[in-house]
Amino acid sequence: MRCLFLLLFCAVMCSCASDPSRLQQTATMSPQALRFLKQNTPPVFNSPLTSASVAPIREEQRAASEAEREHLRETFLSSMQWETIGGVTVAVLVPKHSSGENQGKAAMYVHGGGFALGNPDDAYAMRLAALLRVPVYGVKYRLAPEHPFPAALEDCLAVYAELIASHCPRNVVVFGGSAGGNLALAMLLKAKAEGLPMPAALGLSSPASDLTRTGDSYFSNQGRDPVLQWDRLMEYFALAYAQGNNPRDPLLSPVYADAWPGFPRTLITTGTRDLFLSNCVRLSRTMRKAGVDVELRVWEGMFHGFELIPDLPESEEAREEMAAFLLGAWPR
Amino acid sequence: MRCLFLLLFCAVMCSCASDPSRLQQTATMSPQALRFLKQNTPPVFNSPLTSASVAPIREEQRAASEAEREHLRETFLSSMQWETIGGVTVAVLVPKHSSGENQGKAAMYVHGGGFALGNPDDAYAMRLAALLRVPVYGVKYRLAPEHPFPAALEDCLAVYAELIASHCPRNVVVFGGSAGGNLALAMLLKAKAEGLPMPAALGLSSPASDLTRTGDSYFSNQGRDPVLQWDRLMEYFALAYAQGNNPRDPLLSPVYADAWPGFPRTLITTGTRDLFLSNCVRLSRTMRKAGVDVELRVWEGMFHGFELIPDLPESEEAREEMAAFLLGAWPR
Repeated sequence: MRCLFLLLFCAVMCSCASDPSRLQQTATMSPQALRFLKQNTPPVFNSPLTSASVAPIREEQRAASEAEREHLRETFLSSMQWETIGGVTVAVLVPKHSSGENQGKAAMYVHGGGFALGNPDDAYAMRLAALLRVPVYGVKYRLAPEHPFPAALEDCLAVYAELIASHCPRNVVVFGGSAGGNLALAMLLKAKAEGLPMPAALGLSSPASDLTRTGDSYFSNQGRDPVLQWDRLMEYFALAYAQGNNPRDPLLSPVYADAWPGFPRTLITTGTRDLFLSNCVRLSRTMRKAGVDVELRVWEGMFHGFELIPDLPESEEAREEMAAFLLGAWPR
Repeated sequence: MRCLFLLLFCAVMCSCASDPSRLQQTATMSPQALRFLKQNTPPVFNSPLTSASVAPIREEQRAASEAEREHLRETFLSSMQWETIGGVTVAVLVPKHSSGENQGKAAMYVHGGGFALGNPDDAYAMRLAALLRVPVYGVKYRLAPEHPFPAALEDCLAVYAELIASHCPRNVVVFGGSAGGNLALAMLLKAKAEGLPMPAALGLSSPASDLTRTGDSYFSNQGRDPVLQWDRLMEYFALAYAQGNNPRDPLLSPVYADAWPGFPRTLITTGTRDLFLSNCVRLSRTMRKAGVDVELRVWEGMFHGFELIPDLPESEEAREEMAAFLLGAWPR
């Protein structure tokens, strides 16, 4: 299984594997998801991230996912090109079956990977391109720890500004997951502050809306989420990106923002085992209270980033619902 | 604090109070909710329910809540009468400020209390009547263990059938919580099977959609929910109501139903600490997959039945959102 996180084995396994509650009550998960849960625990780092410690992981990720990405490219895409947009490298994924009514439309993708890992032309981007039938623009933003906040945010904003200049903003949707959800939120908050128009819709898979360890599920799902945990994983990602900055700055932890009025309709997806369940719940509450048309959807037993895993029925469903939501922003 | 469940102290406290994770990470709760969490653990029974064991609790509940209900009656209601509708006793709560545009409209309320306890003229019903500005019909259905399945369901259905005969069905909304959510679901499933029209909307606070201990949160929130747990509490309620019947019958555990097409738009509310989080998540997923316009809203750090507690900001918000949702079923 070529899950992004599976490739993060850079240190010892965490102690959660021995937690007896971890494998309790899994009757409501698909057999495939249960297998994943049984086989995985979050990979952890021995110390805070350095360029030297992440470089080999990035290379390994890219190499290990190459075959799958190649296969998906051939299956789903008519072309995949690297372009420079707003001075930033962008993977432009054009699906084979683009529909006539989607002419002139575009989806901007902000990948996850803890601000330090991940690729803009990942399997998720390709699958979404195929479902959306519009070109997907995956931003190759600068990564931490080499490039801390606000480098990635600036890169995303530069691409967004170009995309809404070359397209009608109502023809653009934005989506991203995990750290990419954080960046997509911060990008639109900054865009709004600068007077830029909003896109038609925003899709967030388990967004990292709070980089401090604040929220019920940061504790309740520690040891239950097979992909992510705070200790020696999320804490190091947050540290590498925030560095000297206050992690409660709304551009670092968007759940603390208040400039929501005017935000586009938003879908947030998560699962009951997701370390970021509370990040999603709190974000949905604060956006709703500010009047945003926001919907939270929760998957039973699912964990952080489950949408990325190719062969879970739950993931397929979540991807299809995300695509349907984004497409719904464009009335036919 | 006159919470329904606070009055259930009929036996020793559960062991969860000693669980160190129980009070972890509460910064995202209101001070009032945190106080409630600190002061409460689920009350438990020493043995399965009998008429003799529940009778004094019912009396105590009614007596202990009398002053609050009296106060709310005076504050919010122009009248409160007991009527017989479809052969069943119903509390008819008429709010003081009923609006002209709500003429001819009605809300049916199915109270919670584990099928064995609770009152149709409870504080929640009165607060919702005030928010909705329409008469609320609270069903005094027969209680377990004296009257097991399907007694309560039959009572609810008899009242519903009368209400949609005396009102245009599009002018009727249905709401309920916990066991009342279970009954409201089963009632509408049965109504649909019998060819009766659906109401305009359905509002469910933490519905008991599965009476078997199936679902992630039945385990993950055991010991974290200060109001409800499975052992010696929910298990006895389920047992008292189901008695000899298969608890996986969709009329006992509606999450296993498949006759959703045609169901009205539905709002489900829950919290990250709710023992029934998975009941809500699974129900929302199965209804959505069947094409129902269903929305799940989750409150950070909240537990089972938090909507019933009078003075939490979270509860007030949840009640207001539930009322707004139900009112939204009636276009102005």
